[in-house]
Amino acid sequence: MRLSRFFMPIMKESPAEAQIVSHKLMLRTGMIRQSAAGIYTWLPLGFRVLQKVSQIVREEQNRAGAIELLMPTLQQADLWRESGRYDDYGLEMLRIKDRHERDLLYGPTNEELITDVFRTFVRSYKDLPKTLYHIQWKFRDEIRPRFGVMRGREFLMKDAYSFDVDEAGARASYNRMFIAYLNTFARMGLKAVPMKADTGPIGGDMSHEFIILADTGESQVFCDSALTDMGAPGLDVDFDADLQPLVDARTALYAATEEKHDPAAFAAQVPPERQLSARGIEVGHIFYFGEKYSAPMKAMITGSDGKERPAQMGSYGVGVSRLLGAIIEAHHDELGIKWPEAVAPFDVAIVNLRPGDSKVDAACEQAYAQLRAMGRDPLYDDTSERPGAKFATMEVIGIPFVLVIGPKGLEAGLVELRERATGAKHELSLEAALNRLAPTGPQVAA
Amino acid sequence: MRLSRFFMPIMKESPAEAQIVSHKLMLRTGMIRQSAAGIYTWLPLGFRVLQKVSQIVREEQNRAGAIELLMPTLQQADLWRESGRYDDYGLEMLRIKDRHERDLLYGPTNEELITDVFRTFVRSYKDLPKTLYHIQWKFRDEIRPRFGVMRGREFLMKDAYSFDVDEAGARASYNRMFIAYLNTFARMGLKAVPMKADTGPIGGDMSHEFIILADTGESQVFCDSALTDMGAPGLDVDFDADLQPLVDARTALYAATEEKHDPAAFAAQVPPERQLSARGIEVGHIFYFGEKYSAPMKAMITGSDGKERPAQMGSYGVGVSRLLGAIIEAHHDELGIKWPEAVAPFDVAIVNLRPGDSKVDAACEQAYAQLRAMGRDPLYDDTSERPGAKFATMEVIGIPFVLVIGPKGLEAGLVELRERATGAKHELSLEAALNRLAPTGPQVAA
Repeated sequence: MRLSRFFMPIMKESPAEAQIVSHKLMLRTGMIRQSAAGIYTWLPLGFRVLQKVSQIVREEQNRAGAIELLMPTLQQADLWRESGRYDDYGLEMLRIKDRHERDLLYGPTNEELITDVFRTFVRSYKDLPKTLYHIQWKFRDEIRPRFGVMRGREFLMKDAYSFDVDEAGARASYNRMFIAYLNTFARMGLKAVPMKADTGPIGGDMSHEFIILADTGESQVFCDSALTDMGAPGLDVDFDADLQPLVDARTALYAATEEKHDPAAFAAQVPPERQLSARGIEVGHIFYFGEKYSAPMKAMITGSDGKERPAQMGSYGVGVSRLLGAIIEAHHDELGIKWPEAVAPFDVAIVNLRPGDSKVDAACEQAYAQLRAMGRDPLYDDTSERPGAKFATMEVIGIPFVLVIGPKGLEAGLVELRERATGAKHELSLEAALNRLAPTGPQVAA
Repeated sequence: MRLSRFFMPIMKESPAEAQIVSHKLMLRTGMIRQSAAGIYTWLPLGFRVLQKVSQIVREEQNRAGAIELLMPTLQQADLWRESGRYDDYGLEMLRIKDRHERDLLYGPTNEELITDVFRTFVRSYKDLPKTLYHIQWKFRDEIRPRFGVMRGREFLMKDAYSFDVDEAGARASYNRMFIAYLNTFARMGLKAVPMKADTGPIGGDMSHEFIILADTGESQVFCDSALTDMGAPGLDVDFDADLQPLVDARTALYAATEEKHDPAAFAAQVPPERQLSARGIEVGHIFYFGEKYSAPMKAMITGSDGKERPAQMGSYGVGVSRLLGAIIEAHHDELGIKWPEAVAPFDVAIVNLRPGDSKVDAACEQAYAQLRAMGRDPLYDDTSERPGAKFATMEVIGIPFVLVIGPKGLEAGLVELRERATGAKHELSLEAALNRLAPTGPQVAA
């Protein structure tokens, strides 16, 4: 993308209305704009990150065998009357009447709708296991939306739903999502710790939240620091194998959110030097709730014994739009955002120090073409802004690598490659710089 | 994708409630399921096509220089009061009150919201031209939703908005979208004819609909058949050049929807043998409406003369979800759907005629791995269904190429390659078949 043609309204000052750093930086860099309380327009820079985060979530869901579909944003109230949640859900559910006075609602979650799809088409254990997911906008009418996309009203969520014929199958499905989540967050440069959690309005018997540790986190969490030192399982995990040992290696270590925290157990199980108490941000939440929806909604499966029983279900959420805030909370400094490469709006920038100089222009165009050809997603600053302002822009929007090309360097056969993560600057030939920028595949390195 | 792991609920019979062939076939092949009147869940097969159609729309918008962002589904009513459309829009607008009794609405279109974004950030002619677009769910509360996704209530639309400092610039922006649309539809195997059209509730001075000719079309259209013989401009169009000649070559020929039809002009301008009167399906609609929104909403631009004036605007819609119906209306036969390769849910299928036979399994696995490695998106039928049923499934869901691998053929060193479009069957070696299936890039051949 040529910056002269892009739409990236950067603000000089941090907006006063934002309280936390991710909200400030998302507004200041022109990633989002509030269009109503808790409802945002994703400007081009923010949209690009949203797409990259969504795509990582999608790839790891697919790798774990989940099948993507797409449920609508609006749902019939009647389905929620079947499960009993229509009256329970309270004011956070946005209730709507259409022109024929029929009750609709803007889905805050999709257990009822997916159970309805499932019961329509699936009858036999032979068709199981199935995990179905979608990435769709949800609405929760928060009484006080705040912290930007961290607690918005209209938000993007990935929600998956597993269906199995028995509890053993359901646990295997739960384990697949548990492992997929660790890889998903690791690919985004996040270290997410699975913690025992309350099941809340979803209900059920077993639940884990995936929590990012960050000073600005919304809640207090407690865990064995060995958990944060443990790497993600890796993208070569065999999802057809028994994943219980991989899950057990993590759940055996103490980790709990405030609601589930047991100080006595914490003290007894965790050596003092590994007792970690920190602030956390929830980025994922998984639930096993068995027959909670399938029984009242009669989603029945015939087992190998010929008998009918309600499907065993679980659900698995990732807060996709919220993740952008969480990543920024975990990756920023006083100059601005420091995007991990995999989710950066552009993974490399070219700064032309003298537009109009034919040699500099030619070198920049060559770099731009080669970076695109090698699968990079470059932003080329071809504007006549002064160099200092160009650098500050690339720093605040957090581009991982910046290739600086100017007339003096070119005379000596050199360009400068800056790394945002470390602040390092390297002088080298354009060819060597482009070689260093050859992309690698997906990484889960911690 | 292995069929044994996919979720593709095919029905044996055509559903009685559907009136038109695309609706029947989308229900029968398990592409969609109605979850409320005019509101659909996109099951995995349908979702895949929706993604491919969206991606083609996106690529051609980007090629034409439009910048993607994402506006929310819900909007504040106050913006629509500024433009004066809140009271005008009528019952098709879904009006919502949140928990604080504030008026929201589910966006049926986005002129107001994008104008609000624009006026917040852009002031100078130096920042223009800009064309911004998004692909987002819309809602229109149709009194009688019908024909499946052709006239749904919740539907996916690509809407772009251009901003220019003067009318000449606005016309150039209009021309870019005009040409981009011809390429977009051609890539999906559709021949879309641009026709002079009414501006309707969007308003404005100049408007074209892009119409697919199909016997089951919703409206009568009239055009010079030379227009349908004309190819798309092609993906190598230079969008920085003057596109007026390419546009004029088309608009010079008679083409009008029923509302704009002038029988006398039709008779006078078109030789009798080229007078085409047919049924049409609208898949795109573009508008130039100048200051209709920018003036009341005060989206002001300072020109090179230092004077402020309202931005000159246009808007450009593609009915993304509706396109799936339109493509099926244009591409089907008595056996089912015949997907053009670029939008097929899977572009090739492998049918294993004897699962469990180690040689057949090995050949199928090899084909599956190689097709994926070459960038194809194969569906591998590894189930124990009988061959006739397997073939019928691939035919009804419209997979363009089917690779049939069985024990008898393999003994002779042969597999069968079936083409859905022509019905042709070829016997050849697996290697030769895979060579034939090497993918090509995007095509706009008519």
